[in-house]
Amino acid sequence: MNNYVLKIDCSDKKGLIYKISDVLYKSDLNIVKNDEFVDSENSKFFFRAIVSGDIENINLVTKLKKVMPEDANIKLTKKRRKKIIIMATKESHCLGDLLLKEYSDDLNAEIVAVVSNYDYLKGLVDKFNIPFHHVCHEGIDRADHETNVLAVLDNYECDYVVLAKYMRILSSDFVKHFDGKMVNIHHSFLPAFVGANPYKQAFNRGVKTIGATAHFVTNDLDEGPIIAQDVINVTHEYSWRDMQKAGRNVEKVVLSNALDLILEDRVFVSFNKTVIF
Amino acid sequence: MNNYVLKIDCSDKKGLIYKISDVLYKSDLNIVKNDEFVDSENSKFFFRAIVSGDIENINLVTKLKKVMPEDANIKLTKKRRKKIIIMATKESHCLGDLLLKEYSDDLNAEIVAVVSNYDYLKGLVDKFNIPFHHVCHEGIDRADHETNVLAVLDNYECDYVVLAKYMRILSSDFVKHFDGKMVNIHHSFLPAFVGANPYKQAFNRGVKTIGATAHFVTNDLDEGPIIAQDVINVTHEYSWRDMQKAGRNVEKVVLSNALDLILEDRVFVSFNKTVIF
Amino acid sequence: MNNYVLKIDCSDKKGLIYKISDVLYKSDLNIVKNDEFVDSENSKFFFRAIVSGDIENINLVTKLKKVMPEDANIKLTKKRRKKIIIMATKESHCLGDLLLKEYSDDLNAEIVAVVSNYDYLKGLVDKFNIPFHHVCHEGIDRADHETNVLAVLDNYECDYVVLAKYMRILSSDFVKHFDGKMVNIHHSFLPAFVGANPYKQAFNRGVKTIGATAHFVTNDLDEGPIIAQDVINVTHEYSWRDMQKAGRNVEKVVLSNALDLILEDRVFVSFNKTVIF
Amino acid sequence: MNNYVLKIDCSDKKGLIYKISDVLYKSDLNIVKNDEFVDSENSKFFFRAIVSGDIENINLVTKLKKVMPEDANIKLTKKRRKKIIIMATKESHCLGDLLLKEYSDDLNAEIVAVVSNYDYLKGLVDKFNIPFHHVCHEGIDRADHETNVLAVLDNYECDYVVLAKYMRILSSDFVKHFDGKMVNIHHSFLPAFVGANPYKQAFNRGVKTIGATAHFVTNDLDEGPIIAQDVINVTHEYSWRDMQKAGRNVEKVVLSNALDLILEDRVFVSFNKTVIF
Repeated sequence: MNNYVLKIDCSDKKGLIYKISDVLYKSDLNIVKNDEFVDSENSKFFFRAIVSGDIENINLVTKLKKVMPEDANIKLTKKRRKKIIIMATKESHCLGDLLLKEYSDDLNAEIVAVVSNYDYLKGLVDKFNIPFHHVCHEGIDRADHETNVLAVLDNYECDYVVLAKYMRILSSDFVKHFDGKMVNIHHSFLPAFVGANPYKQAFNRGVKTIGATAHFVTNDLDEGPIIAQDVINVTHEYSWRDMQKAGRNVEKVVLSNALDLILEDRVFVSFNKTVIF
Repeated sequence: MNNYVLKIDCSDKKGLIYKISDVLYKSDLNIVKNDEFVDSENSKFFFRAIVSGDIENINLVTKLKKVMPEDANIKLTKKRRKKIIIMATKESHCLGDLLLKEYSDDLNAEIVAVVSNYDYLKGLVDKFNIPFHHVCHEGIDRADHETNVLAVLDNYECDYVVLAKYMRILSSDFVKHFDGKMVNIHHSFLPAFVGANPYKQAFNRGVKTIGATAHFVTNDLDEGPIIAQDVINVTHEYSWRDMQKAGRNVEKVVLSNALDLILEDRVFVSFNKTVIF
Repeated sequence: MNNYVLKIDCSDKKGLIYKISDVLYKSDLNIVKNDEFVDSENSKFFFRAIVSGDIENINLVTKLKKVMPEDANIKLTKKRRKKIIIMATKESHCLGDLLLKEYSDDLNAEIVAVVSNYDYLKGLVDKFNIPFHHVCHEGIDRADHETNVLAVLDNYECDYVVLAKYMRILSSDFVKHFDGKMVNIHHSFLPAFVGANPYKQAFNRGVKTIGATAHFVTNDLDEGPIIAQDVINVTHEYSWRDMQKAGRNVEKVVLSNALDLILEDRVFVSFNKTVIF
Repeated sequence: MNNYVLKIDCSDKKGLIYKISDVLYKSDLNIVKNDEFVDSENSKFFFRAIVSGDIENINLVTKLKKVMPEDANIKLTKKRRKKIIIMATKESHCLGDLLLKEYSDDLNAEIVAVVSNYDYLKGLVDKFNIPFHHVCHEGIDRADHETNVLAVLDNYECDYVVLAKYMRILSSDFVKHFDGKMVNIHHSFLPAFVGANPYKQAFNRGVKTIGATAHFVTNDLDEGPIIAQDVINVTHEYSWRDMQKAGRNVEKVVLSNALDLILEDRVFVSFNKTVIF
């Protein structure tokens, strides 16, 4: 008997838990764990359950659709290792952390490929026998480069694309191919600094904390629903390069934590926010 | 229409969610929010729901008992401000924080009385117009002192007794009057130090973190199911008195966080552990 | 024999430590502790020492001035409890925390007065027998209101003015009276939100951390050299009012930590940043 | 011109800073940064400075010895990448993190060799072209195994030996070869758990935080002066295997932070504690 993850979100109505559990019970399935949340402001219902039992030939999703509101998104996923593609540029801290975690079975995913606009990281990726694709951005315009990247990505089946310090801005056209399936990590500060070299700006402002935010990518590379955040403390003794180094440590931890949540199908997206069970 | 908290724990069986939601649905009640957890090692089921609807005359608990396993604990509580009694000795940081929070409506409880084995804290408690009872422990044995304390506590209806740095060891006899209803805060360190003046011991060991643990009181004053914990960082520059001061800050925050959870009926106790929704 | 804090900042030159310690040694004074930092980017030297010995009649500052660069700021302060005035509006969490800390000797300062543009907090302040001044801002313009506030503040000698959730914007004219002597606490988020009700904005953005920043007040109420920062984690279950409550907890801790540093003369300000020993 | 780290510790006397800075000044050297601390309880003086200037032929240590107390330890080190040997057993999280950090120039050290009592980690270490020595402990007694390990270590010059989850108990005889030069990482909890499978014990106790401590190794593998500590939060949903995974994340971060401090010669050891500048 296998475990499945059942995720449902829809407009909120009375009796939804009853209707779901009624279907599951009469299908002879057991709820190992369930979480439920109602976003009362937007009147939206979120439900996630780990379900065990013989699910193969019973058309569970169809049965659920009959009793749930019309706008219900119902996803039933067998618990399995997901496939991910990592996109990076030159920095290795996030990429390397994920490569190592996969190597030591601490990442619930298979890294099927790494794509980069430079070839700096090829040596590292080769060590782990994972396909590395250098898709150079030089001498061509953004649209052409993205077409080339897409051509590479299309060779793989993958569940998520992880931007592990991929430093190119992505067009809306590109991003819309990966709605809810692309994750990014970026530095974040109290207060926020935008523009070039944010660590230098944060240094000049004398911040006492350095943070990182992992989020789904929507139109804007550094916005989108937040999955995980964390900060570490710094002092006046930190040069802006020390801050960057500290930032690398928190970035890799936050990205890894966010992936752990996504890879277990714990994250819903709604109204530019996440609901995480 | 009012909101109620429904808490159920029992041995785990198939279909429990279905059975609960069936009763609620047919009673015309709505589940605003529910959390569920199965302790698979001990095969125990935990369920908490915020339920809204007209609950007064429908014997909900009786209906639920008919369909749930025999060992089910079912508690239905109208959302309300709980009543708490605080016991303290000489230190004011935890007590004062709770007095202030109640004063500014940031504590979801009414402090009905403060009991202390000294009269040091009377001045502070009087400021907030809350009854202060000095039950002196000097010149009498532990059993007699506890009898005197119990006599005072018996004058009040209260939901929880909060040991806010009450520094007397309590007997098993005393504690058993407050099973699952008495909360304590104590310092905690990595590694642990037992015996007199733990801050001096931690100082001598050169610890880099100072922690605090809030827990329900069982037989042993400093053991019992853990509700909340936190730590803060210290350095070699901290004298052991500085560590004590830092400890006070983390103790008051952890106790306050633990109370927030308890006062919203979010905490279950099972096998000397807590399940917190 | 008493302890003194010696603080010096000036342009960086070779041999400054030698020159300072030479003067101290020949004055028969002992350095209990010293910290030193050079901001190499701006070529600025910062020095702080705890000095013990018989300092009263030896013109130490004059002696130091003779050997230090011309631009040297030299401050010699006997270790003593500072005097502070707290300004607040309606929220009691930061104010109350400081009142309690002073009451229980955990604040290295005397709160000589509390000033508010409302009278909401009078009841709380009265409990601690501290003068409360209601300086109403209604019906008069900002300049007149600030004149009235200044008139009250002028009645007191104080070392620092603490804005403990004082929610009025202060003019540059007002602020310049308290250069390096006025401390503010404000919420801060990753990313930042400006404008009305930042907690509502942060809620809408689905942030996973809530932060607070304590800083000296310069021209802009919410900018100025940062002294302390911290964050706590929140989840999708937090309403924006829950976020506000969580924010109150972190605000009071950060303000209190910042004051601890300031009250021990550990903070330098330079180029809109702080150096903290 | 190069930078040097000067570290001095000795019994506390009046005028030590003066005497040190006098020698430096008259040697035409500049103090870029200095930190000083007096452990008043034990009357011990600690001093660390970054010194720049032409130091090669001036016998600085000899000059300092003439003016400092007889018991002074004076170490002058040119700023350079240290050499470290890593010892591990089967777990890769700490080892892998250090390999990656060295590979991407984020570790201020060269990993000259890895020694393990198993060959599990050989594949990982080989990827980074670093010598891997499998020194099997099976079928021989502890003394013989340690002799074999020492024989391997003796082939290398190294500044520090890092126990990155090396799970064998080391004898006092072995440890005394590496006084102040051997660093260990181990799990730590509030409260502490000793004996087999501490994560299972912590799970059974329902802890809400999981910690790690990095420390110098003295006689007892899991005691010795603490260099760095940190914790992360866990919930009742964590199985003990989840706690172990969370523990791996905090262990690797704490070990890496401790090494950063050691590799920059920022750590003193005194009376089983550390002083860290």
